[in-house]
Amino acid sequence: MSREGVTPQSEDFSAWYNELVVRAQLVDRGPVRGTMVIRPYGYRIWELIQADLDGRIKEAGHENACFPMFIPESYLKREAEHVEGFAPELAVVTVAGGKELEEPLIVRPTSETVIGEYMAKWIESHRDLPLLLNQWANVVRWEMRPRMFLRTTEFLWQEGHTAHVDEDDAMRETMWALDAYAGVARELAAIPVVEGEKTPGERFAGAVRTYTIEGMMRDGRALQSGTSHYLGTNFAKAFEIQYQDEEGRLTLAHTTSWGMSTRMIGGVIMTHGDDKGLVLPPRLAPYQVVIVPIGRDELAERTGAAARELGAELKRAGIRVHVDDKRPQLRPGFKFNDWEMRGVPIRLELGPRDLEAGVATLARRLPTVEGQGKETIRLDQAAARLPGILEEFQEFLLRRAEAFRDEHTRTVDSWEAFAEQVSGGWALAFHCGRTECEDEIKADTAATPRCVPLEAPEESGGCIRCDRPSAYGKRVLFGRAY
Amino acid sequence: MSREGVTPQSEDFSAWYNELVVRAQLVDRGPVRGTMVIRPYGYRIWELIQADLDGRIKEAGHENACFPMFIPESYLKREAEHVEGFAPELAVVTVAGGKELEEPLIVRPTSETVIGEYMAKWIESHRDLPLLLNQWANVVRWEMRPRMFLRTTEFLWQEGHTAHVDEDDAMRETMWALDAYAGVARELAAIPVVEGEKTPGERFAGAVRTYTIEGMMRDGRALQSGTSHYLGTNFAKAFEIQYQDEEGRLTLAHTTSWGMSTRMIGGVIMTHGDDKGLVLPPRLAPYQVVIVPIGRDELAERTGAAARELGAELKRAGIRVHVDDKRPQLRPGFKFNDWEMRGVPIRLELGPRDLEAGVATLARRLPTVEGQGKETIRLDQAAARLPGILEEFQEFLLRRAEAFRDEHTRTVDSWEAFAEQVSGGWALAFHCGRTECEDEIKADTAATPRCVPLEAPEESGGCIRCDRPSAYGKRVLFGRAY
Repeated sequence: MSREGVTPQSEDFSAWYNELVVRAQLVDRGPVRGTMVIRPYGYRIWELIQADLDGRIKEAGHENACFPMFIPESYLKREAEHVEGFAPELAVVTVAGGKELEEPLIVRPTSETVIGEYMAKWIESHRDLPLLLNQWANVVRWEMRPRMFLRTTEFLWQEGHTAHVDEDDAMRETMWALDAYAGVARELAAIPVVEGEKTPGERFAGAVRTYTIEGMMRDGRALQSGTSHYLGTNFAKAFEIQYQDEEGRLTLAHTTSWGMSTRMIGGVIMTHGDDKGLVLPPRLAPYQVVIVPIGRDELAERTGAAARELGAELKRAGIRVHVDDKRPQLRPGFKFNDWEMRGVPIRLELGPRDLEAGVATLARRLPTVEGQGKETIRLDQAAARLPGILEEFQEFLLRRAEAFRDEHTRTVDSWEAFAEQVSGGWALAFHCGRTECEDEIKADTAATPRCVPLEAPEESGGCIRCDRPSAYGKRVLFGRAY
Repeated sequence: MSREGVTPQSEDFSAWYNELVVRAQLVDRGPVRGTMVIRPYGYRIWELIQADLDGRIKEAGHENACFPMFIPESYLKREAEHVEGFAPELAVVTVAGGKELEEPLIVRPTSETVIGEYMAKWIESHRDLPLLLNQWANVVRWEMRPRMFLRTTEFLWQEGHTAHVDEDDAMRETMWALDAYAGVARELAAIPVVEGEKTPGERFAGAVRTYTIEGMMRDGRALQSGTSHYLGTNFAKAFEIQYQDEEGRLTLAHTTSWGMSTRMIGGVIMTHGDDKGLVLPPRLAPYQVVIVPIGRDELAERTGAAARELGAELKRAGIRVHVDDKRPQLRPGFKFNDWEMRGVPIRLELGPRDLEAGVATLARRLPTVEGQGKETIRLDQAAARLPGILEEFQEFLLRRAEAFRDEHTRTVDSWEAFAEQVSGGWALAFHCGRTECEDEIKADTAATPRCVPLEAPEESGGCIRCDRPSAYGKRVLFGRAY
């Protein structure tokens, strides 16, 4: 890795990712194995995801709350599958206030148990339902193979937790959350995710049904980018979440939970990035436009002043803009590479000749249908034209990612075709539904069932691996995953 | 405590507070001693504080980031005073991923140490300064005498951490943060805080100078509501935070830190609340206006529909409004008491006769200069008039709290007058500056030096306790504190 650049994506995808996240100042490795320091440039992306998703959550009637992060060990043990799923990943506080604790405290890996306890306390009658809660929080899952943003010991997320009178209402909620996540992925992150249901072997520990959105990264792997769970009455039974129905009968509530995390930032990097570095969708870019004034000494003063003036005007127009006028020791070429590596969608170069002509030179981070190389833009039109140019760039990234995903997804009906396809993309294939069979496929190809896509047509056939009859009435989407 | 009400404030302030925070659905006791569940009604207040304070922080050039909550024990030990101050309050993770850890991990009580480590890494030259960071986070300090919002084992806050070229610049920052906190307290929470410097005995562990804002609660006690610390080069030395100055010399940075927490919610409750319950300042009220439709059966349908229509109109006008139309089983009188207990500033009652006359009955949570009892407001003028009425109410609460504070603050020059004054308010008195003398005053009266007010006039005299010469060139503000 050179000081300026990173290992090209095309050479070593994994090295490219690990170097880029640090070089682009998104993140730094934390002092404790598997933890991360999210730097301002990375945290701003998270804030933009938060603002949008929080708006959707509130608009649909949910309220934010905050539950404690220390959970008594006994709570976790009440739902058998849940504790079994999470036990290997727990961090445990055993000493506090200078003393050994009588009951060890779990640092939350997720909050179904503690929230279940309070739902039981707050819900009395059918009038208290649905109870629609959400929290923005940090959670801890001890990771053996950590990777910045994708799998870290501590990460940030939101977790929705809701309780309903029956399965119908709970399932409506489960699908609402899934659609909200797909909307955030497509509309903000320009990631054309596939929505689908997880097979039993891939379900959340304690769920009856788990739904997922899966994005395709530029190495052909899948990234699970948000999940929504219908929990049935499993947690209601464990925590006695019950209500009096209209006839006065005591009835178990049906609950859901759903989460989206800082993992999404990793998805943005791997969906759009290239050999030069990051490519950020404008709606999630900390800086949508960067202005680089050019010239030395007196000329620098003139172009610098003009750049600041233009920057102020773009800011008033609601554009997130950065003026690169505080690093006189660096050459323009270095700055251009730097901002390309950091993924800024639009760069405006402002040299003395540009200034004389009343223009700036505009460069897109990638050539699009609308604009190939550099072009000039009139300074007095920049504030009016840039919002449209940014929207085109956003749309371009989504279309490009869609085309990539479609090129790398194939319907396969033979084991040979399957094995070849999942080495660099996704395969749509029939599967028998047996977990042992899933395990064999994984052992041979490293591919796992990502989901049964909601939109796949009704079809049946022999399992791609064992030829037993297919189980889901549809093809299953298989791929290697992060 | 009756089912509907709480112990009157005038009877037992402490019982009133403890009952009210739960009854008003702000908070519930957590499952682990000293922790709290912040319910939506309480969390919304925090979100409103956050939105305002985050805007001020960003406007002044700070950027948000996120540092890990697990800190290696060795980090804390690097600054001697710091570890000594926090050691008794630490929660420690000793087991993770199924194994005993080699080095125990501290759950952050505050983040100077871990952020110091990264500042040292990121800062090379004077061009990298000032470095202005902030994070919104949860922190843990084991509490022996927990109290909801005021002292909880886990709480939410923001912590600013900045590095500067010299003391001047760091002190400007320290005072900026103090003023930002005073602004939030006065303008949002209607708490007329006193800004001042802490005496050495009350300083933050590791700081050179600590500044505070102190609010007076309605029992005459003080609540420290935000602190800002000039850390000198203490943490810069411990973590090697240094930069090359313009002449190329390696120089220690000067750092600051500052924090405001969910404790502010407790301050709002105890500054404005009364025997009936909460009184919320409109700028922090989850619901600024509640509309209660009145009438049974067919009448309920008509007034309910009109209430929802009015609610939608007020919402469009930017007012946070709640329509109480989902509890037909409850009487209007019960609802009125309920919303008064929960502190909603303005209640609009909409009965069949009101509706016929095209009006609603408006009731303020407290009589103000502008409005004493109930009055009527025309439905077609409500959206236009209510923002002004809410602003008047906000202003009224601030003036009322100012008058209360001034009535309960006296300049005293004898020990007898001092002891009497601090039993129900604040005393301005000379002090010698010795920590042993502060300790004696505390042992005798339970009062502590809250701060040396920035705005106090220059004066000197004999110590109120020991008659030695006064130390600060000003009087010191003493009071009992939470």
